[in-house]
Amino acid sequence: VTRLTTFSGGDFGNWEVESIEAVAGASLPDASWLAVSEDAETAHVGAAWLLRGVTSNQRYTTREEQTILLAEQPQLGRPEATRAALIPIRKTEEWWELAQDERREILADRSKHVSIGLEYLPGVARRLYHCRDFGEPFDFLTWFEYAPSQAAAFSELVARLRDTPEWGYVEREVEIRLVR
Amino acid sequence: VTRLTTFSGGDFGNWEVESIEAVAGASLPDASWLAVSEDAETAHVGAAWLLRGVTSNQRYTTREEQTILLAEQPQLGRPEATRAALIPIRKTEEWWELAQDERREILADRSKHVSIGLEYLPGVARRLYHCRDFGEPFDFLTWFEYAPSQAAAFSELVARLRDTPEWGYVEREVEIRLVR
Repeated sequence: VTRLTTFSGGDFGNWEVESIEAVAGASLPDASWLAVSEDAETAHVGAAWLLRGVTSNQRYTTREEQTILLAEQPQLGRPEATRAALIPIRKTEEWWELAQDERREILADRSKHVSIGLEYLPGVARRLYHCRDFGEPFDFLTWFEYAPSQAAAFSELVARLRDTPEWGYVEREVEIRLVR
Repeated sequence: VTRLTTFSGGDFGNWEVESIEAVAGASLPDASWLAVSEDAETAHVGAAWLLRGVTSNQRYTTREEQTILLAEQPQLGRPEATRAALIPIRKTEEWWELAQDERREILADRSKHVSIGLEYLPGVARRLYHCRDFGEPFDFLTWFEYAPSQAAAFSELVARLRDTPEWGYVEREVEIRLVR
């Protein structure tokens, strides 16, 4: 079972790019459309950039948190969710050299990453892809899907996360807003 | 920085295969030599099998454990360490669906995985490679290196780990003993 997903920015795809903005570090090249593919064999001829990641096991959530998340989080692909965002992030080497308990303490206890995300369910659907171990330019790609009525809530969610101690370890972040 | 290492079993390599034994599930095809390469471009023509993995951040150890490990663990490649073992392992889907706190509780609190390993330092050097997210047939590859005088200690270490609750989640394991 491969769980690899490829996101390619360029001249085709099912999502139209509204904006690409660097939040920290370098941005990504311009692209008009984004294609999302779970078929690794698909050729992305002429794409301006490709980002790849895999869904994987949960790295920080406790059973209690995971039970709430599983109950509350909506599926991707809801008909009303015509807005999306792809946010690639790279954290510092300092972050990755922290021990598991130190990372959990910063992410959960001090930054409330999990509980902040829960406040925006079921409005904002979310899926995390891991890519650090593939030697990719980012460590994670987070995909969000929401209805136009949830656009302000989505902006608030990412602003709150960026204001946490955890974000002190983010050295590159790009926000790509999409419409279908 | 790619941290990918490829292990190939076949007719060449710097380690001679002493034995390949299935501990759980299916074994691997016979091979006389094992080649270890950090160059992903190397062709492994005629290899009987290839296993790939990456070193990555620690997934379970606390700062306290990590500090002790960093102080105690020897480098790979010590001249006296002419014995090695490669142990590929796959855990069950049930394991991967557990939350982080549940996996830590089984691995550390109930199975003493970290503290058992510490008892065999610095005699038995160890490096963990992750491969589950690559769609490989195993989840981890663990590499051990030790002097001939430590062979009995190594056998005791793996026997003790296999006797823990954590090993109830191991569905495939192969032990490859090597000499150089």
